[in-house]
Amino acid sequence: MTLLLKNMLLCDALRERGEYASLLIEEGVISAILPAGEAPPCEEVVDGRGKMALIPGFVNAHTHAAMVLLRGLGEDSPLKVWLETKIWPLEARLTREHIYWGTKQALLEMAARGVTAFADMYFEMDAVVEAALETGVRIAPCRGIVGDGPEKLAEGLALADTWRGHKDFVSVQLGPHAPYTLSLPFLKEICAAAKDRNLGVHFHFLETQDEIEYLRKNFGLSPAEYLEESGIASAPSALLAHCVWLDPATLDEADFSRTALVHNPNSNCKLGSGIMDLSGISAKMPRIALGTDGAASNNRLDIWGEMRSAALLAKGTRRDPTAVPARDVLRMATLEGAKALGFPRTGLIREGWAADLVLVDLDSPSYVGVDEGNVHGYLVYAGGAEDIAGTMVAGRWIYREGGYPHADREEILAKAKEMRKNLLQ
Amino acid sequence: MTLLLKNMLLCDALRERGEYASLLIEEGVISAILPAGEAPPCEEVVDGRGKMALIPGFVNAHTHAAMVLLRGLGEDSPLKVWLETKIWPLEARLTREHIYWGTKQALLEMAARGVTAFADMYFEMDAVVEAALETGVRIAPCRGIVGDGPEKLAEGLALADTWRGHKDFVSVQLGPHAPYTLSLPFLKEICAAAKDRNLGVHFHFLETQDEIEYLRKNFGLSPAEYLEESGIASAPSALLAHCVWLDPATLDEADFSRTALVHNPNSNCKLGSGIMDLSGISAKMPRIALGTDGAASNNRLDIWGEMRSAALLAKGTRRDPTAVPARDVLRMATLEGAKALGFPRTGLIREGWAADLVLVDLDSPSYVGVDEGNVHGYLVYAGGAEDIAGTMVAGRWIYREGGYPHADREEILAKAKEMRKNLLQ
Repeated sequence: MTLLLKNMLLCDALRERGEYASLLIEEGVISAILPAGEAPPCEEVVDGRGKMALIPGFVNAHTHAAMVLLRGLGEDSPLKVWLETKIWPLEARLTREHIYWGTKQALLEMAARGVTAFADMYFEMDAVVEAALETGVRIAPCRGIVGDGPEKLAEGLALADTWRGHKDFVSVQLGPHAPYTLSLPFLKEICAAAKDRNLGVHFHFLETQDEIEYLRKNFGLSPAEYLEESGIASAPSALLAHCVWLDPATLDEADFSRTALVHNPNSNCKLGSGIMDLSGISAKMPRIALGTDGAASNNRLDIWGEMRSAALLAKGTRRDPTAVPARDVLRMATLEGAKALGFPRTGLIREGWAADLVLVDLDSPSYVGVDEGNVHGYLVYAGGAEDIAGTMVAGRWIYREGGYPHADREEILAKAKEMRKNLLQ
Repeated sequence: MTLLLKNMLLCDALRERGEYASLLIEEGVISAILPAGEAPPCEEVVDGRGKMALIPGFVNAHTHAAMVLLRGLGEDSPLKVWLETKIWPLEARLTREHIYWGTKQALLEMAARGVTAFADMYFEMDAVVEAALETGVRIAPCRGIVGDGPEKLAEGLALADTWRGHKDFVSVQLGPHAPYTLSLPFLKEICAAAKDRNLGVHFHFLETQDEIEYLRKNFGLSPAEYLEESGIASAPSALLAHCVWLDPATLDEADFSRTALVHNPNSNCKLGSGIMDLSGISAKMPRIALGTDGAASNNRLDIWGEMRSAALLAKGTRRDPTAVPARDVLRMATLEGAKALGFPRTGLIREGWAADLVLVDLDSPSYVGVDEGNVHGYLVYAGGAEDIAGTMVAGRWIYREGGYPHADREEILAKAKEMRKNLLQ
């Protein structure tokens, strides 16, 4: 199967300017980038007529996809009330079937918003991986480990065994939940297992300010010391979600070379956790990806929106319009996410790289004036996920013009509604 | 012409819960709200099948619509560089034709995003009003007065004379630009004329922090004293745009009963002006509307997005998830905007009120689980302008399912592109 995406404005995080060109796609890979005018014979041709852009697929580097089932419950409540009366009691009732269909729903949302890979921390993760593979989206799954329990670590390791043969699409990580839900010795055990098995670690860190005091009081450690002591900093790779309260100075105190941070600007605001100093941190640490967090605390699974929010929050809090420019957040949303999840040769538009792409319709009023020189800014500040005309993973359309070529949208929505109703009964 | 919008989930800022019902619309007015099942014979029927919501039209209470022509220029630059090398030199070249077509483009964007009324401060305002009326959108126009000049005030007053006969659609205000672009005596003259002619005043205030010092140094006045001394606080009505640096305590120091603030969260972030304390201010002052500002500094003309940003920024900066709940921002985006612009009986879904409505498609993955009890939260946090299936002003569709029944989209886009090209040459 050969596919030609013809006469498109290419835009990725390492191009200083956009470029009109055509992409030849074979076997799921960008096999050639041709001048816009060239048109070799192909089985399928999509002609952008110079009115469409291609950008790399978005990576949602921290979510709990099945939490779409808990969306909209207890809005605008104090955190403790929301968790204790809404989220935790319902999560305790979630079955494999709930999680499978909730994830399928979330994948419809993410596919329509250009997400081609996501890192998911939850439970019943085999069901989550199945949903991702059926949808055709790459996944970095981890079994969320809340509370010490060797059986949960065993489950996490079993996940890696099960999906070992699918590494192009499934990059299993271990998922210790957070400093306040695990003992330090057990966290060390998890990190040791990660090293032993060459797995990444996905962890919530410094989401709220009181975690700093918690680390000091319970372990006598600073945040940097805790990351080193626990073994997170020396794990094969680590995804640290949130990091709202990470002081940029901390980044000099430990070896963060194998660590990526996941910035979740909208969830952090909505839960009242605070606003990460993206500008300060990114000056010291380029490995920053973006995540939506779960839909119960965001409530959109929309990395394009996170990209815009990340840039605007940085400028607003720093009172500096030059803070975190458009191309930087595009990099976080694509290339850095792809690296952090462990999917090589994804996240850029390059010959020999995977055809994980978002097709953007520029033929709309808000793109009047877009050109090669300003396309990054137009996309980040004026554009949005509503402009997406197609999402492709490894050369296969998972979303196209409002529809899902390989998913039964109506069945999934009906099942998701049934699951939610059942859960709330 | 009678129209029935049948079996819809009604949602507005004064309803604590959504309500399934049908709206009968006659002569541009909501003539009856009927039980969802009832269906009197009508010339046109739109059946929501319980899968669509109706909300009041959004009000963009502070913008400079024609600035779409300047979108994307000098992104991520320091404010001074952006203004001095991009915005001001190009604005100096703007003709009536540029402004007319730029505004027409902006109106396509706003119509698709549910805006049914907007307050616009710019120049060549007759052309702006013509564009609004052709599109079918209500407008509160004002001639922006930058620098002392009786001829500019005369122009502003002439605008009121010209459009006096159109008050359902045109609510003319006077537009003194900002404290730092006008002398205090001239501002007093403008406010006196506003009182004399019973016109509202639209003003930029405390957009940047240094304005506080500017007022003290140049006039020996605090912000509250300046508003009183200038006559703004006692004008028939006042729209104060931005107010990023308005200390909530100031609200006790002057009479703000005729004043509305316009919060522009995304523009304020993008330009690095800062983040208004919406939570603190709204506790003392309910008259807060939302605005996008111009598209050169936002860059979206999307009040739905401003609504979400307003709520999330308030929660994030206050570190309080209960700050500024969903229904409060919906109120700002609709009812408070309508009052601030001076369009009575708009901004709510009530019998006898104008049929200024946004039709929202709830049949999408992100609305799984929406019901009467949670619809405000779903719309504000999970929804977005991409869900809009139609926008109606006074019973007339100005946008419907991707198209514009009364506008030539292709002509407007072609002209807008030509204008931009001409301007940048």
